[in-house]
Amino acid sequence: MKRIYLDSNSAMPTRREVVEEMLPFFTEHYGNPSSIHELGKKPRRAMEVARERVASLIGSDPSEIIFTSGATESINLALRGPIPFRGPGKDRIVISQADHQSVRATSAAIENSGLRRSVLELDGSGRISMEEAERTIGEDVYMVSIPFASHEVGTLQPLGEVLELVKEHGALFHIDLTTSAFQIPFDVKELDADLVTLSSVDLMGPKGVGALFVRKGTGISGLIKGGGHERGLRSGSENIPGIVGFGAAAEYVKQNMSIYSPRLCSIRDHLIKGLLGIPDSHLNGHPKSRLPNNANIRFDYVEGESMLLLLDMNGISVSSGSACTQKNLEPSRTLLSMGLRHEEAHGSLQFTMNPDNTMEDAKYVISIMPEIVEQLRDMSPLYNP
Amino acid sequence: MKRIYLDSNSAMPTRREVVEEMLPFFTEHYGNPSSIHELGKKPRRAMEVARERVASLIGSDPSEIIFTSGATESINLALRGPIPFRGPGKDRIVISQADHQSVRATSAAIENSGLRRSVLELDGSGRISMEEAERTIGEDVYMVSIPFASHEVGTLQPLGEVLELVKEHGALFHIDLTTSAFQIPFDVKELDADLVTLSSVDLMGPKGVGALFVRKGTGISGLIKGGGHERGLRSGSENIPGIVGFGAAAEYVKQNMSIYSPRLCSIRDHLIKGLLGIPDSHLNGHPKSRLPNNANIRFDYVEGESMLLLLDMNGISVSSGSACTQKNLEPSRTLLSMGLRHEEAHGSLQFTMNPDNTMEDAKYVISIMPEIVEQLRDMSPLYNP
Repeated sequence: MKRIYLDSNSAMPTRREVVEEMLPFFTEHYGNPSSIHELGKKPRRAMEVARERVASLIGSDPSEIIFTSGATESINLALRGPIPFRGPGKDRIVISQADHQSVRATSAAIENSGLRRSVLELDGSGRISMEEAERTIGEDVYMVSIPFASHEVGTLQPLGEVLELVKEHGALFHIDLTTSAFQIPFDVKELDADLVTLSSVDLMGPKGVGALFVRKGTGISGLIKGGGHERGLRSGSENIPGIVGFGAAAEYVKQNMSIYSPRLCSIRDHLIKGLLGIPDSHLNGHPKSRLPNNANIRFDYVEGESMLLLLDMNGISVSSGSACTQKNLEPSRTLLSMGLRHEEAHGSLQFTMNPDNTMEDAKYVISIMPEIVEQLRDMSPLYNP
Repeated sequence: MKRIYLDSNSAMPTRREVVEEMLPFFTEHYGNPSSIHELGKKPRRAMEVARERVASLIGSDPSEIIFTSGATESINLALRGPIPFRGPGKDRIVISQADHQSVRATSAAIENSGLRRSVLELDGSGRISMEEAERTIGEDVYMVSIPFASHEVGTLQPLGEVLELVKEHGALFHIDLTTSAFQIPFDVKELDADLVTLSSVDLMGPKGVGALFVRKGTGISGLIKGGGHERGLRSGSENIPGIVGFGAAAEYVKQNMSIYSPRLCSIRDHLIKGLLGIPDSHLNGHPKSRLPNNANIRFDYVEGESMLLLLDMNGISVSSGSACTQKNLEPSRTLLSMGLRHEEAHGSLQFTMNPDNTMEDAKYVISIMPEIVEQLRDMSPLYNP
């Protein structure tokens, strides 16, 4: 059976050409980049090329890129690292219900350690409200963290407007670019963020590597202590094959995004239109202002997990929540914040694509979904057509 | 020119068969192990096999293995994670001058945050003194961290004796197994440590992955917050190819250590004997109780960096300090603690092997080293033969 993978938010395949670039650094150029001898040179140079490539994707200077072990570590560093440098009276962090679990958990730990936290709610389309943001972001805020797009429903956030507010109150601005970086251009020269999280696997690079952009002059201390690698912000011998792969993936994305992103939009729109043909189905998130690769649909009277399993039996991989919390049966906080009831959140599916997906994939899902929904509704005591 | 690599403490090559096991997890079994659908299964199962293999290397239960991004992160987690759970009045950590830079830096950060720290000095052979340990380890100590072997000079530490002291005072015991795990057997059932750091690259696995053994029942909180992976102790989507490679490397080491370790001892002893034939040269560290792969030799009246560069020009890679701090010109604290003067520490070279090294490598170094030392001594104003 052909496998159709529509769960790219949970994990993406590493591109073959990326793996090819990594391979020599496992067995041949395996030296430590800090070594002075011959075997330190290639890894050192390769790391700098990777840093230039990742920097180039977001228009930053290479010296502003700190390599980490992934988006979660980047987010932990971004939110906690600046705390010792915050100004007097600045003891609050502002996040949103659009944020990834790692932003929520890190900011909750910050709250437990004695600072305060505010969480911006979302409107029905998954956007934060600027009115609430204006009420919430004050002089006591040291940081505002907003994702470029909601991790789950894909709604884009009003970053430019938030940035103005943040700067007005002398706070730092962290943007989580994890889900958007491979599909929507972003430039730190155009949008003056202080900290930006990037993930390699979400650029079709290897897992276990990420980066944090730290704008020159930003006061920040490292979380992981040791030999003082990465300008003292991230100790530990560098994961050279991973970093090389991350750089190769960033380069691929930069060269090809303008080709595959419009195509993803077409597939997404076809998928959304087709699935909304099923009675009592609804789009979660904004109809236009959303990630090219994201279709998040809810089907009334049906459980997401059951749909997921039947789709899986038909060769289709999707997600009912965010992957890292799927073992948790709590409904998505993003969906609840958007005003959905528990059972509506539970009846939602995330279809997320990568450049390998085709229009045929969407057509197959559209052909198979109605009978799955019907089958499950027939079993539901709540469904009375 | 044939390259002879004798800098395995700085980085080891990943074994080809290890890379082969990793490859399918980049491009084929790329799913997120938390996913419920088909593509989550293989990564999930592979991660559990890797956990069993790593656990098996040190005789632990798989549930006691927490995967991290490497030894440095493991050490940060080991030293800081238990702080919130320490008993009343327990506000001191004890480390030693044999420790890796990451233990020193992490414990220094702990000291800066308000706790206290004691650093055990070393005797002339690189061993901690049990007399000093007895004086130092008291009821106010929450943790003692000792490496199985000195990272630089390779001297083995009296772990069993320290363990007794540690238990007597109700402290936790962390053992850094980074440099020893591939060459000397270790079993957590025989030596009752609470926390043990393991590194993948030092087992000839990939860089960017490590583990912390946490004995069942040990109170510890995670440093990196997020989706609650690794029993809540290390959030972040798992680096599956890296973890698979780590497991494969652990399995290789378990199967082959008894074959290659005695061979490494022979090569080491031949190398030490040959190099001590050079006038005014000395072995650093214990002559017998040392890592099979480590020869650390000092040459009077010569600079380590200069020898390193001339060896490099002759195709030989070695290290003059610990790799991650080579950019730092401070002399090694381990060597100073052993009673060496600054210039003696600066004249020391680390020759560290892996199972790919041969007796021929040692013979070549022995053949070339005398003229390098002589050449440099001829230029030295301090040398008056």
